[in-house]
Amino acid sequence: MKIVVVGASGTIGQAVIQELEKKHEIIRAGRNGQDVSVDITSVVSIKNMYEQIGKIDAVVSTTGGAHFAPITELTPELNEIGIESKLKGQINLVLLGMEYMNDGGSFTLTTGIMMDDPIPLGASAAMANGGVKAFVKSAAIEMPRGIRINSVSPNVLQESWDKYGEFFPGFEAVPASRVALAYRKSVEGAQTGQNYEVY
Amino acid sequence: MKIVVVGASGTIGQAVIQELEKKHEIIRAGRNGQDVSVDITSVVSIKNMYEQIGKIDAVVSTTGGAHFAPITELTPELNEIGIESKLKGQINLVLLGMEYMNDGGSFTLTTGIMMDDPIPLGASAAMANGGVKAFVKSAAIEMPRGIRINSVSPNVLQESWDKYGEFFPGFEAVPASRVALAYRKSVEGAQTGQNYEVY
Ligand SMILES: NC(=O)c1ccc[n+]([C@@H]2O[C@H](COP(=O)([O-])OP(=O)(O)OC[C@H]3O[C@@H](n4cnc5c(N)ncnc54)[C@H](OP(=O)(O)O)[C@@H]3O)[C@@H](O)[C@H]2O)c1
Ligand SMILES: NC(=O)c1ccc[n+]([C@@H]2O[C@H](COP(=O)([O-])OP(=O)(O)OC[C@H]3O[C@@H](n4cnc5c(N)ncnc54)[C@H](OP(=O)(O)O)[C@@H]3O)[C@@H](O)[C@H]2O)c1
Repeated sequence: MKIVVVGASGTIGQAVIQELEKKHEIIRAGRNGQDVSVDITSVVSIKNMYEQIGKIDAVVSTTGGAHFAPITELTPELNEIGIESKLKGQINLVLLGMEYMNDGGSFTLTTGIMMDDPIPLGASAAMANGGVKAFVKSAAIEMPRGIRINSVSPNVLQESWDKYGEFFPGFEAVPASRVALAYRKSVEGAQTGQNYEVY
Repeated sequence: MKIVVVGASGTIGQAVIQELEKKHEIIRAGRNGQDVSVDITSVVSIKNMYEQIGKIDAVVSTTGGAHFAPITELTPELNEIGIESKLKGQINLVLLGMEYMNDGGSFTLTTGIMMDDPIPLGASAAMANGGVKAFVKSAAIEMPRGIRINSVSPNVLQESWDKYGEFFPGFEAVPASRVALAYRKSVEGAQTGQNYEVY
């Protein structure tokens, strides 16, 4: 399969590529993408990416940011970051990628444990995660031409523990390699409308 | 309690007011609000509303729109409607209303069954619902001064069946009066972080 990984250079993206590259052709995308550059917060940039790549069998998104702040300091403007990136950015990869997707292909997006097991400072990221999860579940029932769509909801990663660990007291970090399996299940399997929890 | 109902003139808003007005002072809000006018898609308009009203004990949002379209016809621009209205509009009522909320007060937002039990054309509304639900669950754990936050997820209403029934085959419509009880539980009860399903 020809698979675009958006967020290829990231912690999760690298692990997903390691899991998939033995059997598949990988196109590495990101703002500084190795194969193609894309900024998911821009509709024009997403359109340009798909035009450059042409037909594909799978899109895996392992990207999407959101602002972390106490709820009392979260402003509409700061909340916008998660809306533009993690929520709309990922959903627009689907809406604009549909016509480039081969029959029976798949989209796999990324959510995260914070929507199910909330932490302080996390309301905006949780919002984006919950929006992506519900979009995936609903869109799945009417995707055309056998196209599937799932999301993966990782716990905090062992590889990211130094960066994020202090925000996740008592969470049991998971290895990136285990998270990568869920993306593989989504891409190579036959399920749709799922949010694979790797908790 | 002094309670602002945003979406007061709507099907759900009217039922909620009927349930609450015996015991509480109700401020009816909406774009053509009887007591105060507000457009939730505008940050400036929300700020103006709160400035006019001053201190409050509860905000109930029974409003928020989203565009209905097949997933193959949903564009980023059409998806924006649900993001601006049902998702951001409701969340901004919380972010901007916090400083006007008395200690121990509450916010109650509206989601909907489509995120749990998806229907064709509903992906954008489901996205907004899922985002609001996850925001509520996460924000609840760090609200200041005993302020609570919940959402209500109604099934399709009997009162809206003529308008929406054809999109919900096999759904068991619920009376607005039953939905209104969930809002009352949120406002007068002590729970927080809940999404009351009235299915
Ligand atoms: N790490 C964890 O513990 C964890 C746990 C649960 C969920 N998640 C979620 O998983 C996703 C990836 O996390 P990660 O830790 O792997 O992130 P990361 O290491 O920071 O990598 C982010 C990747 O996304 C790309 N990127 C950033 N902004 C972009 C944009 N606007 N458009 C296109 N590409 C962009 C980056 O490359 P460029 O800089 O070149 O654009 C990079 O490849 C995020 O949504 C995160 O919330 C992570
Ligand atoms: N009806 C159902 O069966 C059902 C089921 C599940 C969930 N829901 C959800 O419940 C909510 C209310 O539904 P409903 O059927 O009661 O709606 P409705 O009868 O159409 O009423 C909508 C209310 O919101 C106000 N409004 C609309 N746009 C607004 C804006 N931008 N800013 C401020 N106020 C605005 C309207 O007044 P103005 O025109 O004066 O602004 C009106 O009071 C919606 O989010 C809907 O998705 C409804």
